[in-house]
Amino acid sequence: MADVATALANVVGEEHVLAGDEVPPEYGRDESLGVAAERPGMVVRPADVEQVAAVLGVAAEHGLPVTARGSGTGLSGAAVPRPGGLVVSFERMNRILEIDTDGQVAVVQPGVTLAELDQATAGKGLVYPIFPGEDGASIGGTVATNAGGMHAVKEGVTRHHVLGLEAVLATGEIIRTGGRYVKTSTGYDLTQLIVGSEGTLALVTEVTLRLRPRLAHRAGVLAPFPGTEAVTAAVPRLTGGGLDPLVLEYVDVLAMAAITENAGLDLGVPQEVRDAAGAYLLVILENRSAERLDEDVQTLGEELAGLGAADAYVLAGDRLQKLVTAREQAFWAARHAGANAIVDAVVPRAELARFFAAVPAIAGRHGALIGGCGHAGDGNVHLSVFQPDADALARLMDELLAAAAGLGGTISGEHGIGREKTHHFRALEDPAKVELMGRIKKAFDPDGILNPGVLFG
Amino acid sequence: MADVATALANVVGEEHVLAGDEVPPEYGRDESLGVAAERPGMVVRPADVEQVAAVLGVAAEHGLPVTARGSGTGLSGAAVPRPGGLVVSFERMNRILEIDTDGQVAVVQPGVTLAELDQATAGKGLVYPIFPGEDGASIGGTVATNAGGMHAVKEGVTRHHVLGLEAVLATGEIIRTGGRYVKTSTGYDLTQLIVGSEGTLALVTEVTLRLRPRLAHRAGVLAPFPGTEAVTAAVPRLTGGGLDPLVLEYVDVLAMAAITENAGLDLGVPQEVRDAAGAYLLVILENRSAERLDEDVQTLGEELAGLGAADAYVLAGDRLQKLVTAREQAFWAARHAGANAIVDAVVPRAELARFFAAVPAIAGRHGALIGGCGHAGDGNVHLSVFQPDADALARLMDELLAAAAGLGGTISGEHGIGREKTHHFRALEDPAKVELMGRIKKAFDPDGILNPGVLFG
Ligand SMILES: Cc1cc2nc3c(=O)[nH]c(=O)nc-3n(C[C@H](O)[C@H](O)[C@H](O)COP(=O)(O)OP(=O)(O)OC[C@H]3O[C@@H](n4cnc5c(N)ncnc54)[C@H](O)[C@@H]3O)c2cc1C
Ligand SMILES: Cc1cc2nc3c(=O)[nH]c(=O)nc-3n(C[C@H](O)[C@H](O)[C@H](O)COP(=O)(O)OP(=O)(O)OC[C@H]3O[C@@H](n4cnc5c(N)ncnc54)[C@H](O)[C@@H]3O)c2cc1C
Repeated sequence: MADVATALANVVGEEHVLAGDEVPPEYGRDESLGVAAERPGMVVRPADVEQVAAVLGVAAEHGLPVTARGSGTGLSGAAVPRPGGLVVSFERMNRILEIDTDGQVAVVQPGVTLAELDQATAGKGLVYPIFPGEDGASIGGTVATNAGGMHAVKEGVTRHHVLGLEAVLATGEIIRTGGRYVKTSTGYDLTQLIVGSEGTLALVTEVTLRLRPRLAHRAGVLAPFPGTEAVTAAVPRLTGGGLDPLVLEYVDVLAMAAITENAGLDLGVPQEVRDAAGAYLLVILENRSAERLDEDVQTLGEELAGLGAADAYVLAGDRLQKLVTAREQAFWAARHAGANAIVDAVVPRAELARFFAAVPAIAGRHGALIGGCGHAGDGNVHLSVFQPDADALARLMDELLAAAAGLGGTISGEHGIGREKTHHFRALEDPAKVELMGRIKKAFDPDGILNPGVLFG
Repeated sequence: MADVATALANVVGEEHVLAGDEVPPEYGRDESLGVAAERPGMVVRPADVEQVAAVLGVAAEHGLPVTARGSGTGLSGAAVPRPGGLVVSFERMNRILEIDTDGQVAVVQPGVTLAELDQATAGKGLVYPIFPGEDGASIGGTVATNAGGMHAVKEGVTRHHVLGLEAVLATGEIIRTGGRYVKTSTGYDLTQLIVGSEGTLALVTEVTLRLRPRLAHRAGVLAPFPGTEAVTAAVPRLTGGGLDPLVLEYVDVLAMAAITENAGLDLGVPQEVRDAAGAYLLVILENRSAERLDEDVQTLGEELAGLGAADAYVLAGDRLQKLVTAREQAFWAARHAGANAIVDAVVPRAELARFFAAVPAIAGRHGALIGGCGHAGDGNVHLSVFQPDADALARLMDELLAAAAGLGGTISGEHGIGREKTHHFRALEDPAKVELMGRIKKAFDPDGILNPGVLFG
């Protein structure tokens, strides 16, 4: 190991190699509830692509497993290293290289956070429209997990905004994929292959992102519904109607209680309405014109009433922002309340009702409490599962994820497989496909040094 | 060969195997100007995925090169088979299996044409928003080339609408990728890898597509500009301004003369305006409300005037449709006029002006005439090159495509590499990337039977 440390120090400088006991414990974990922290052997903090390539050269030579690390906010244990392995942290590669206003493109290093990019684009009338609940997440991490978030129903997910990459293969080769153009038919789309690959194919050292015009006006409507059935019936009407909602979130009563309490939030919904509510829908609209927004909010209110909402509370400005923030922190609220697992399943939008109907039965069978919220417009459901018994929890998760897959859905919409769901991935995905993925992995990383244990288990 | 024919007849029935002289010549060509027709040894017309798998089994056993064929409207020779090889034509797999209105999803067989899908979705208030110039193209062909078209500036290209695939590998294995959901982070995105792979990775037997609401109102504005410089300066203002144009096409005076003449079209632009025009911009807006559309057209007109347009002619209904159709047929107009090659380069939007400035110089150096039109909003330029001398044409194409690549662009935006551009692909793309693509190809098709000669040459 001393050899390795010296070789790495020669690449990045001694002060950017941490070894053994010097390694702060946060480099061994992410925010997953189900994956225990590990102690990496070393952490290295490269400053540029050449250093990353040289670091991978050293790792390859010594057969050292390598785990890339962005901000460590992932929810599936994908940034948890191998015990004794090498963590490549992108914290120093944190520069916004360019914001091209005319081209509507940003070129950034992987360590830039979403919050930093949002601040930099705001002044230029542009926005990078990926807003997962955690704006401290890095661009590299969001690319590697194909992060989604609340705006996905309108704007799509990370992969729809990544135009090009610079990346280093396990062999130390540097490749450039895509570019500052929104369309191409020039060979296999390696950009899209690397997006969502959770650090198992290549290390991303630069990202070219598509930006969108930042619209000036935004308003939200919070609608209590008698129950989840009415909510799920409303969703396709709202996505198909042409109002093009920016946000279409479902929050069940348990989750709503937790997040409003956690944030100390009063939404102005009277007690008797809250008592009668079975679930809430939060719809946010955006427009470049304030007048059109007002009209659309009006139309939305009428549509919601027609779809069985008990009422519709218009939220704007500060109050809307507070609810959005509280919703984004649903994960912390759930963790604070003692949740033992977070589900990130996706089902076809038309199957949401069936999935919601299945959940209480599964909870009951395994003596668990399940509450949740989610990106209803995308069929992406986040459930917090309360069942402290590990065996019962495992059986419940098996059943829950199998139910999603059985409805034509899949086990992760945006958090990734990581180390947490490899077993479900193998159990529920088409074996021919998983085998093919293994062969693709080999094409990138013949010796399997990049994030072993993630995805394939 | 008799053995093979018998084996194939056992799979698909004798009437669906054509061999030797029975093979109609159209199975040996597509619409590329630069790739000569070939005579395949056999054509087979499977009826379902099992037959496709069995056909590939036969081909693999006999080491027979296989070229998938949709409608044969491709512009890069990607559907031109190997001499003596096997063509798998998807003409019989032409059923729309489902249009799920609530899920906004269509499930179709690959032989369905864009025109057929458009007709089927129209009645349901939905649209599959991919409109390349040729609506006889098949879904399988458009998936394999990642087709774009005029609406891409707003709606994106084929890959943004393909949610899932069923496909057969060269080994005869059937895989299913993705599903009826708009987001997933469940392993490598094989759907996106197969999209744009031009029949070299797998044969696509079923496609799940994302549909969008069909908006009721549409209007266009045709703006003559003094020259291409003013046009290219206008483009980023129009894409960044929030009007969200559905179409943003540039047409130079040569192309405009050819397409209006070819279609016998009078656009009501006075002779003196035409004489002074250096280039045209066609902008189409869409809205669910007629009033808002009117307002937006007004705003657009003012913006265009501010950007230096000589005038702005509002076109709606029949007149707009006629111009769109005429523009779609620009390829036929160019071919009719004797064009020797079609360019499909992409450059970063912000580099369009520089590319346009380079073109006349390149044309001059090689004694050619070059006219064109293109998807200006995407930086995707279609040029018709008139230079009958093959050597001069080859040198010109080398220089033109290198110019696009040199500006940070790439050699094909939507037509693909096919057999036509393999040499430019190898010359201009990152060699490390091309090698990696070769390894990925091997992961899918170890013996290289799928469309050899395409992409890799
Ligand atoms: C409160 C909270 C709310 C959240 N809400 C959402 C949500 O709504 N939607 C959503 O999608 N996610 C959400 N997340 C999850 C998390 O924010 C995302 O997964 C995010 O993408 C992780 O980014 P990161 O920089 O922290 O990545 P990390 O956790 O550091 O790493 C994640 C993966 O990316 C890899 N990686 C990191 N950098 C690179 C690189 N440069 N090259 C190659 N691989 C790399 C790692 O190896 C690992 O596999 C939430 C998390 C929290 C804590
Ligand atoms: C007048 C005109 C205008 C055009 N305008 C545009 C335009 O604006 N934008 C644009 O993008 N294109 C345009 N094109 C090109 C063409 O329409 C597209 O390339 C289209 O995608 C080809 O579809 P096809 O069914 O004809 O495919 P084919 O030509 O039959 O095949 C194309 C490729 O797809 C493969 N393939 C076909 N079916 C399958 C399958 N089931 N599985 C795997 N591989 C398969 C073939 O092997 C080949 O590699 C235009 C063409 C014409 C003639």
